[in-house]
Order: sequence, then structure tokens, then C-alpha cells
Amino acid sequence: MELGPILLMLVVLFFLARIASSVIERFGLPGLIGEIVLGIIIANVVIDGTSLLTLMDLKLPIPELDLPGNDNYSILSTFSELGVIFLLFSVGLETRVKDLLGSGKTAMFVAVLGVIIPFILGFVYIQVTDGNFHHAMFLAAAMVATSVGITAQVIKDMHLLDKKESRIIISAAVIDDVLGMVVLAIVKGTAGSSGGLDIMGLVIIIIEAVVFVLGVILIAKKGVPAITSWWVRMNSKRATPLKRPNALVLGLIACLFFAWLAEEIGLAAIIGSFLAGMLFADYAEETGLMHSVETLTAFFIPFFFVNVGMQVDVSTLGDMTVIITVIVVLIIALISKYLGCGLGAKLGERGLSRDSFNIIGIGMIPRGEVGIIVASIGLGIMVEGAPALSPQLYSVIVIMAVATTIIAPPLLSRTYRKKYPEVDKDEDTIVE
Amino acid sequence: MELGPILLMLVVLFFLARIASSVIERFGLPGLIGEIVLGIIIANVVIDGTSLLTLMDLKLPIPELDLPGNDNYSILSTFSELGVIFLLFSVGLETRVKDLLGSGKTAMFVAVLGVIIPFILGFVYIQVTDGNFHHAMFLAAAMVATSVGITAQVIKDMHLLDKKESRIIISAAVIDDVLGMVVLAIVKGTAGSSGGLDIMGLVIIIIEAVVFVLGVILIAKKGVPAITSWWVRMNSKRATPLKRPNALVLGLIACLFFAWLAEEIGLAAIIGSFLAGMLFADYAEETGLMHSVETLTAFFIPFFFVNVGMQVDVSTLGDMTVIITVIVVLIIALISKYLGCGLGAKLGERGLSRDSFNIIGIGMIPRGEVGIIVASIGLGIMVEGAPALSPQLYSVIVIMAVATTIIAPPLLSRTYRKKYPEVDKDEDTIVE
Repeated sequence: MELGPILLMLVVLFFLARIASSVIERFGLPGLIGEIVLGIIIANVVIDGTSLLTLMDLKLPIPELDLPGNDNYSILSTFSELGVIFLLFSVGLETRVKDLLGSGKTAMFVAVLGVIIPFILGFVYIQVTDGNFHHAMFLAAAMVATSVGITAQVIKDMHLLDKKESRIIISAAVIDDVLGMVVLAIVKGTAGSSGGLDIMGLVIIIIEAVVFVLGVILIAKKGVPAITSWWVRMNSKRATPLKRPNALVLGLIACLFFAWLAEEIGLAAIIGSFLAGMLFADYAEETGLMHSVETLTAFFIPFFFVNVGMQVDVSTLGDMTVIITVIVVLIIALISKYLGCGLGAKLGERGLSRDSFNIIGIGMIPRGEVGIIVASIGLGIMVEGAPALSPQLYSVIVIMAVATTIIAPPLLSRTYRKKYPEVDKDEDTIVE
Repeated sequence: MELGPILLMLVVLFFLARIASSVIERFGLPGLIGEIVLGIIIANVVIDGTSLLTLMDLKLPIPELDLPGNDNYSILSTFSELGVIFLLFSVGLETRVKDLLGSGKTAMFVAVLGVIIPFILGFVYIQVTDGNFHHAMFLAAAMVATSVGITAQVIKDMHLLDKKESRIIISAAVIDDVLGMVVLAIVKGTAGSSGGLDIMGLVIIIIEAVVFVLGVILIAKKGVPAITSWWVRMNSKRATPLKRPNALVLGLIACLFFAWLAEEIGLAAIIGSFLAGMLFADYAEETGLMHSVETLTAFFIPFFFVNVGMQVDVSTLGDMTVIITVIVVLIIALISKYLGCGLGAKLGERGLSRDSFNIIGIGMIPRGEVGIIVASIGLGIMVEGAPALSPQLYSVIVIMAVATTIIAPPLLSRTYRKKYPEVDKDEDTIVE
């Protein structure tokens, strides 16, 4: 491994991401769209027969060909994952357990309807047009999980985390992620055991998910105050000149540990880091932990959005039937989440305003990396000699996930501004 | 590449490093020694035939066998490099150009004598006992470059960066690094061209080094104020809710870019990031850049010290002649730097106190990663069918580099405390 190429890749991507985000912001759109578009350009633009990816020595791993990436790509991909892990950690830091439980019933309705409706519509469409049961199951599963990362970035940057709708969206996205993992387990079960459902595996993942979430909430309420006071006691007995900030160290350990644990038991790493953030929510401001985590996020997160863009293979758009499938799947993805989650919110709260319906429906639209991960899993499982998900549908899902990611943020910030016009006036006072 | 094992490695190393550093601090030693010892233990302790490295899936690349590392190791190694890059960046942030030029003459004497004396003593010892000219040249070259990272950490943690001795040490270490690169170029030249010197290559690296350092100092004085005001003007024209902190972004770009550039032209990456830090020294406090960089350093730097420890192969210590060589080389390394740099300081400043002599002499002792890098280069160059540096001498250099790194910090903090007794009283007010 050589240091030079890795430093070059990091600085070039970081610099270009900043430029791209500045340019997009001039059009009043969230900067992360610029970073995603940059990724699409890097992965797809070819000059004189040499793609920009080759120029940057960034070999993407291609699952269907079983081609591994290179050192540069594995660094980029780790940075990208850490970016979204730290982002969700900082969102968790601003989420107190009692607030989450407060929006519980509505969030549950939003999550459940937001999972069922996209799954059914996605499944029916592919089952009818494509006819392959496994293809339909995997595409439907990829429609399910909201990628809270992108919505969270928009909400956080607008400083609207304390609004009712924001709480509902984030709580619902957590529940939704857990439901999404259950759906994935079911779909994997049907593909793995050639037709039948792996009931045991399903039961295990449901139990794991529930125990994990409830366990963390319990720790947050009882364990953390005890551990924190013990740690502070232990470390202040003998102060030395090399003492490092304890809150950051403890926070980072919890963040990485819960991210790993969530990944290990089959949930997404970001669920773990979000819950870890909740553990420290009561200490985030006074200890400076929030500020530190925001710095780490600022360093890592551009790599995440660029990497999301790099997953898009524009060349698959050459085929007319693929284009039609992309368009229909995208429309289903937008409408089903919007209506499902909006209706869920209306069921949960009487007298919900039109604006709140829109905010919650739109806020839950982005699929992002979760859909892409589901798609890669489908591509990797073989059923009767063929992948459980076709490479064309894989591209469709990636484009759908990215498109929802691009479409939702500007709509979301517009609907938020409509309901909370005071946001614009705060702009100049924003200092991170 | 899978996320789970990488997260596990990161959290386990980070957690153990914190524990190790806490334990060592209880003995009044700098915490980084605990992190290095942790690395030695991980790389060398074997339980039931399974080494801890294998348990952690951390395959070290072994240069003499041309074995590449694995994904986990390339992530660890990148984090480790970024740690020392950010550390030197933050040291640079506290170093103003005028202060550096102020300690210029003394620093130059310290650097020059601190290069010449260790080189001559190291060369003579190996030439006499081992008889191989190339072995002697590479070992001597590895004795030369001070690893300012470790000394800088001690000085920074004791909040003594503004003291005269600290300025001299850091300026001298920069000059010394440049001289070390020149020495390396000479040694590589003699090995590469089978006996003769590659004069052109030597001239080029000297010119590059001088142009680089002077260029950065010029940019710091003229360019940065202009660029900064342009950037602020450009970004404040249209404020958007997604605006990110500009100082951090600009600082990170400069840090990574100069680190890459230094690496690219054959200097060490840390020279680049140190100089980049100097560019922003006038803006570090008011923009919060210092605080942000310290957060990044706190996250990355434990991986550097653990990695330094992991380079030590204790099994090479089984051979008696190797043990004797280790001991003699270590004594030469300690005495030659201490006397060379101390005498340099005495030549540069009339009436230098005994304490200042000790601080400067001891502060320049650690060789750390620079010596190890020189050793790896020697191991990789073939002269008449054999490596220019033998594997045994490679281990000797690594152990010497680590031992100087372990020995110097406690001595350094003791001599600093002797001269500046007020340091201990400040302890409780240290907040990062």
C-alpha cells in the first residue's frame, strides 16, 4: 500500500465535492446533490477512452463479475461508511429517548404503512411485467427502507431537528429500518431455501432487532449515567498532561461499537450509531461532544455522497425496456412512500395539517444506500443457477435509490420552509 | 470489502489504546508509550498458537517476503498516516512563520550536527562489525531523521509550544527531516548505481526540498491572506442552509494537498502537513480550525502509535549478536543525537543553560517512523542479489526507532518540568 495515491484521491475528491456542493447551493438546492452528481460524473464520464475512475485509480468492486476493488476504493468505501455512521451518531445526539417515545404511535403508523405500500406495489409491478418471483421479491424489498441519512442531513442543516415532523420522520425511519431488515430476512429466506420460508432465521432477526433497540433505550435511561460517573471518577483521580477529552473518546467507542454490533447481528451499522448517539444525548452539548462529532462528520461525509453517486452506471440506460422500468419503479417509489407515510401520519395524529402530511411523506422518500445494499445482496444470491436479482434490475434499483435521494431534498426543504418560514431568517446566524 | 471486521478492528484498537494510555499515565509516563506497547503486544503475543494479529485479521505486509497486507491493515495504516499528518498539521497551526525564522540559526546548527554525528557513528560501527558498505550506509541514514511527531505530542500536551526550546526543536526537526531526505537520496544513489553517486538525483531532491519549504513560507506570507478573503467573499455572496464551516474545509484541503505534494516529490508527507498548518497559523484560533483539527487528531492518532508498536518483531531478539547490535545501535542513537543537537544549540546560542541543552538534546532523540521508512527502503533495494539492508539490521532499526520513541518522552517531560515547574500547576485547567 502506498500513501501517495490515497492522499491524492482523498484531497481531489474532498476538493471537488466542496466545489460541486457550492455550485449546487447557488441554485438553492442542498449541496449533497452536487456531491452525488460528482460521483455519477466520476463513475461514468470517459475522456479519450480513459474513464475518470481509472485516472483516479478507483476500481469499483463489481459484484456480478466478482471483481474486487483496489486499496483506494476500500479506503473510500470505509470513509464513506464512517461518514454516514458519524452523521447518524450526531443525529442520535440530538434525539432524546423521551422525545422518540413521545412520537411513538404516529411514527409506528408512518413506518408500517411506508413499508407495506411500497413493497406491495413494487412486487406486483415486477411480478406482472418480469414474471420472476425472486426478482419481484428483491426489488420490493429494496423499495422499503428509507435512507434517513439524506433526510437527516437536510433537517440538521436547516436546524429543524426540534420540530414535530422531524422527530416523527427520524423515529419512523428507525422503525422502518428495523422493518426493512425483517423484510430483507424474509426475502433472503424465500430465495435461500428454494421456495420455503426460513422461519427460524426470521424469528431470530425479529427478536434481535427488538432486543437491540429496547436494550439501547434501557441502557440510555439507566446505564449511561452510571458508566459516565464511573469513568469521570476513574480518570480524574490522577490528572496527567496527556489527558485527552473523555467525552469524545467514550462517545467514539460507543458509536463504533454499536455500529459494529448492529452490523454483526444483521441490522445496518447506522442503526447502531444512531442509537449510540441517543445514549449521549443528555451530555452532547456540555461536553463539546456534538461539536467534535460534527467535525468528524464534515471530514467523512462528502465521501459518502460521492460514493453513492459512483454506484450509478449510466450505460444501463441504453435499453428502452430498462428506461421504462426505471421510470415506473421511480414513480412507484415516490408515490408509495409519500402516500403510505403521509396516510400513516394522518392515522396517527388527528387534524394533521396538509403541510405536515407533505413534510413526512416527502421526508421518508429517499432510499439511498439501504436500497442499494439490498440490491447487492439480491445480486449475490444464486437461485437455480441465476442471481436472485437480475443485473438490469440491480441498475434500476441503484438509479431509483439515487433519484429519490436527489428528488426528495429540494422538495423537503421547500415544504419545510412553507411551514416554518422563519428558517430563512436564521441563515446568517448559522455557525457550526 | 466488508464493513463489520473493519469497524470491529477500529473500535477494539481505539478502546484498548485508550486503556493502555490510561494505565501508562498512572505511572506518570506519556500515554502514547502505552499505545506503542499495546502495538508490540498485539504483534508478538501468541496464545494457543494463534497470534493476536490473526485474531484481529490484521495481516502485516512483510517487505522481505513481499507479502501484501489485507484490507484491515491497509485501513489501519491509512488511519495511522492520517493521524500523524493531522498531528503535524496542528503543530504547524501553532507555528508562525516569523517564530520559525526567529529560531533559524540555532535550529540550523541543531539540525546539522544532529544529522552528521549520528550518521558518522552509525556508519563506522556497522562498517567495522558487519563490513558491508550498503548495510552501513542504510543503517546510518536511518539514524538521522528525528521523528518530530512524538516529541510534538509531548510538547503539545504539556502546552509548552511557545517556549524557546520547543520552537528550536520543531524548527530543527523540520530542517533535519529535509536533511534526512537528502541523506536518504545519497544513500539510495550509492546503492542504485552500483557504487557511484547519482549526482543528478541528489541535486534534484535538494532543489525540490528547498523550493518546497521556501515556497510554502512565501505562500504563508503573501498568498493565504489573498485566497482566504477571496474564498470568504465567494461563499458569503449567497448563504444557504447547507453552508459548512469554511475554515475547516480549506484547512483540510491544504493539509492533504501539501502532504500529498511532499510525499510526491520525495519528502515525507508530514513535512507537507506541518507547512500547511503554518499557512493557517494566523487564523487557527478565531475560526475554530485548531479545535477541529485536534478532534480529527484525537480520532486518528492512537492508530499511529499502535501501528508503530506493531512493527516490532520480538522474535529477532533471540540471536545474541543481534541483541548486542541492538544495544550498541541504541546507545549510539541516544548519545549521538543528544550530544549533536545539544552542542548545535550551544553553538547557536551563547550562554545556553544546562536545562535547555538537555531539553533540545533529548527532544531530538525519537526516530520513530522516519527511521523505519528508511529501513524499509533499504530492505527493498537489491544490490548484487541481496537487499541493501539485511533483515536483521532492519529489525535492529525498527527496535532502535521504537526504543528511542519510548525512552525520550518521559525524559523530555522530566527535563521540561525541571525548567518550567509551573507546568504541573496548569494541569487541571487543561481543556481541549
